[in-house]
Amino acid sequence: MAVVKPSISKGTRDFTPQEMIRRNYIFNTIRSVFEKYAYLPIETPSMENLSTLMGKYGEEGDRLIFKILNSGDFTKDADMSLPPNQLAAKICEKGLRYDLTVPFARFVVMHQNDLTFPFKRYQMQPVWRADRPQKGRYREFYQCDVDVIGSNSLLYEAELMKITDEVFNKLGVNVTIHINNRKILMGVAALAGAEEKMVDICTAIDKLDKIGKENVIAELRERGLTDAAIDKLLPIFDIQGDNDHVLQTLRSLFADIPVGMQGVEELEQVLDFAKMYAVDADIRLEILLARGLNYYTGAIFEVRANDVQIGSISGGGRYDDLTGVFGLKNMSGVGISYGAERIYDVMQELDLFPPEIAAPVKAIILNFGEKEVEYAMPLLVKMRAVGIASEIYPDKVKIGKQMNYANAKAIPYVIMAGEEEMTKGVFTVKNMTTGEQRACEIDEVLEILRG
Amino acid sequence: MAVVKPSISKGTRDFTPQEMIRRNYIFNTIRSVFEKYAYLPIETPSMENLSTLMGKYGEEGDRLIFKILNSGDFTKDADMSLPPNQLAAKICEKGLRYDLTVPFARFVVMHQNDLTFPFKRYQMQPVWRADRPQKGRYREFYQCDVDVIGSNSLLYEAELMKITDEVFNKLGVNVTIHINNRKILMGVAALAGAEEKMVDICTAIDKLDKIGKENVIAELRERGLTDAAIDKLLPIFDIQGDNDHVLQTLRSLFADIPVGMQGVEELEQVLDFAKMYAVDADIRLEILLARGLNYYTGAIFEVRANDVQIGSISGGGRYDDLTGVFGLKNMSGVGISYGAERIYDVMQELDLFPPEIAAPVKAIILNFGEKEVEYAMPLLVKMRAVGIASEIYPDKVKIGKQMNYANAKAIPYVIMAGEEEMTKGVFTVKNMTTGEQRACEIDEVLEILRG
Repeated sequence: MAVVKPSISKGTRDFTPQEMIRRNYIFNTIRSVFEKYAYLPIETPSMENLSTLMGKYGEEGDRLIFKILNSGDFTKDADMSLPPNQLAAKICEKGLRYDLTVPFARFVVMHQNDLTFPFKRYQMQPVWRADRPQKGRYREFYQCDVDVIGSNSLLYEAELMKITDEVFNKLGVNVTIHINNRKILMGVAALAGAEEKMVDICTAIDKLDKIGKENVIAELRERGLTDAAIDKLLPIFDIQGDNDHVLQTLRSLFADIPVGMQGVEELEQVLDFAKMYAVDADIRLEILLARGLNYYTGAIFEVRANDVQIGSISGGGRYDDLTGVFGLKNMSGVGISYGAERIYDVMQELDLFPPEIAAPVKAIILNFGEKEVEYAMPLLVKMRAVGIASEIYPDKVKIGKQMNYANAKAIPYVIMAGEEEMTKGVFTVKNMTTGEQRACEIDEVLEILRG
Repeated sequence: MAVVKPSISKGTRDFTPQEMIRRNYIFNTIRSVFEKYAYLPIETPSMENLSTLMGKYGEEGDRLIFKILNSGDFTKDADMSLPPNQLAAKICEKGLRYDLTVPFARFVVMHQNDLTFPFKRYQMQPVWRADRPQKGRYREFYQCDVDVIGSNSLLYEAELMKITDEVFNKLGVNVTIHINNRKILMGVAALAGAEEKMVDICTAIDKLDKIGKENVIAELRERGLTDAAIDKLLPIFDIQGDNDHVLQTLRSLFADIPVGMQGVEELEQVLDFAKMYAVDADIRLEILLARGLNYYTGAIFEVRANDVQIGSISGGGRYDDLTGVFGLKNMSGVGISYGAERIYDVMQELDLFPPEIAAPVKAIILNFGEKEVEYAMPLLVKMRAVGIASEIYPDKVKIGKQMNYANAKAIPYVIMAGEEEMTKGVFTVKNMTTGEQRACEIDEVLEILRG
């Protein structure tokens, strides 16, 4: 075979053991919380039919879906002179999962007769996007989604905030949970008598802190709002204070706007439930938060780390018609998605990974030769039998080399058994952190390692 | 959006919570054993450059690699009139991982300066093959590989057998570990003076039990062996008995065949080490076992379940030059791969999944209305705080419907709190298995659920 220079595909990554251990720490923490809150795991295939994926993520999204070439003679029945976009649809029938939401919707519709609703599921799998790779943006990355579908109960909004609270608490990341409701945004637009300009209005007012009142007003004018409409919006500019105060102000502003009032009531209810759930993290009502406005129909969540500038580290909301596009109506759902790479970066920057996970192997027996190996094997077998991750160095090489191996793997205990130990029926255990070492019988070795 | 009939890509599968829980039970068991034996996790990307993948799996393998269409204008610079095979190479530069071995080799070469050898790694990820789907054969399936690279020590052969022993012991699957060594096969061929016909000879003699001595001899003749050569092979036909006896017989047959003798000595050493490792499972020397003959250079393993006819459920061996194709010479490795779907099928057929994993959620609080929910919330918070997986039904609907939900999720304890309980400050806990129910204070509820 010809020798090939090894290379890795652009925008993808290998994970070394050190990275894997940290990533698994994040995944396991998230998973354990999800399961404690009675969410169950599902998985969907990496490849979906393009008919499932296309048209769900906008034009840009369609472009970013990795398409898989049909097997065999893919040119058969395809007019190879078509322009690339159209040709791709002829020679590819499958694509790689772009997110976990659309496959989940497909799953729910296809398995609807076997599922019990409300269906509480979580899903932690990679997704792929043909984005131009850049710092912190990869073509393959993991999403951790938790959703409940088939219930309108606002208890779930609160439960998801509590889950978020607990996940980040366990990971040691201080967060603020920002919350809003699409109905508030609709109310704001209705206030100006310009429902159709909801997105324009939110985008402009959201810049208040950055560009100031006068510039926001100018932008609203540019975006086609009349002065009369803008006047009606001015009270929104001044809303400040804690959640209760904001809700009170909105109540009076929305006195004649039913959709806005409904938003206020939903938020009040969710905040009440969150109190019952004893959510620790700061919950901040942010009445212009418009994340995922295209699909969220009720609550909107965004979670930000307090101690590092990195944008949101998770987000979600309620969507009233996730499965409609696959023919199943009236399935309201609410969910939150956690981005593993963002959380990893935050924890790395704040040095939050617990030191003990860095030493997955607890002990190594050095190799002093055939007889010594034979003498030490029963200890090795026993260590593993009682659950101590451990190993024996495979060859009789210089002790320095064996010690280097132990250090590179950050193994905290080195066990030595040469002629002297064999005669006495003991093992010398060296604590690599303190440098202390002492001779022990087998039971004592196990005690030290378990301690 | 137009309504789409939901469909799943041919040869791929969704996993429901029930299946996921069983699959995770297998994965977690395997993972915990790997880690106890000091193997560390790595992951490689799903997509590899085709230059990494192509030519490594034979012609058939190349055909079965899923190729990913280049993004953007893939027709640019491609002569679209080329035949499909050649055109695919022009319009696709990436493919989906076909196994975990080649990506591992690439990983080792690219990270060689950051790794400490011997490098003990495990990897549990899906692989993809464009096979024609059929019962038990999927286009996406998981492999669980454990390998050590950078050492010739036969201790690792024994360690891998011990790992296999422990994995299947924990899973409750009785297995036999079949072992051979390529050097034995080479010795057999040398015995006949027909080294170049090694594969022919093994294939023919391997049918001895099925087709009988006369037919094997006829087949050997057909495959071009002379009568003199066949005469020399006859003693191989009669080798029977336990491992020690087989090795003794081979020793005398291979007296003048160094490669064969080396095979015998390696096997003896590996079996000795396996004894020191206290391997429980039957280890059976099978001198014609030729699995993976194309790449294995030393030990060859194959693991079969004793109580069900399903072929091998894991296998592996030693390969002396895994990384040579990527430019790194002299890296001997040995490894075993476990097929998750086969193991799943065996455990399903033998009903080996422990019943307790079927009830991941321990308790549900029924919903009798707003006030009752408020009363019950502190219990829910407390249950979760002490680690009990639990939930509350989100809506006040008929109790029958709520009970159906509890049953569908196999939740063993149902907790009720209506007006009477609220007055008395208690909760009624119903054991769904026995039907018993009784009124308890919060602490007692927790005690029952933890018990």
